[in-house]
Amino acid sequence: MSPRHAADTHETCVAVREVLNRVGDKWSVFVVGTLSDGPRRFSELKRTIEGISQRMLTLTLRGLERDGLVTRTVFPTIPPRVDYALTPLGRTLLEPVMALMAWSEKHRVAIQDARDRFDGRLKKRARD
Amino acid sequence: MSPRHAADTHETCVAVREVLNRVGDKWSVFVVGTLSDGPRRFSELKRTIEGISQRMLTLTLRGLERDGLVTRTVFPTIPPRVDYALTPLGRTLLEPVMALMAWSEKHRVAIQDARDRFDGRLKKRARD
Repeated sequence: MSPRHAADTHETCVAVREVLNRVGDKWSVFVVGTLSDGPRRFSELKRTIEGISQRMLTLTLRGLERDGLVTRTVFPTIPPRVDYALTPLGRTLLEPVMALMAWSEKHRVAIQDARDRFDGRLKKRARD
Repeated sequence: MSPRHAADTHETCVAVREVLNRVGDKWSVFVVGTLSDGPRRFSELKRTIEGISQRMLTLTLRGLERDGLVTRTVFPTIPPRVDYALTPLGRTLLEPVMALMAWSEKHRVAIQDARDRFDGRLKKRARD
């Protein structure tokens, strides 16, 4: 199946690409993966997803909320507590996202080896 | 399964994220999808993948080649012909990538509706 078969019209193609823009983003993948266990506060997400900045987490959550994949619930405590959770639509994304994460995990060593070989060839060519 | 379960150590986590960086990229997804039907020349890829620039296609193919997912074969014709094809490792990526594309295609209307509602709420709040 090529993108042509999956998306026959230009409009569909653009729409799919826009969706992929979001769900293919690594931070979105990690946020959706982390929320698979249940609702999380902002600070919990920040702690769990190593390497994400405050700003990037805010942007990612806002994008997922806009796409209808994540809900944001503010509890009127002091200080206010904000919970993020997957919507039913967001839950349906778990399966393909988890498949992609499992693939990445399974093949990361093969990919690292390929990168080392590629970079080695480039270096050799530069020397020759 | 959270990213924590999938990737217990920091090193694994970073490695998975780097792999996702590549395979989660929308252009990589489209290139891999297009090559599922067999080898393609650069110009064919450029034509099939609407909206990709020459530079972005070059970068994407180079990244996929470096990761060991795509081969680049130069035929000594005049002008030289360059074919790109999936490696066996690249072929294993088809399944999760196609699942993600199918999800995007299936839910693109729901996502567009959610975006419209979100943007409408923002506008309303700005007016109030």
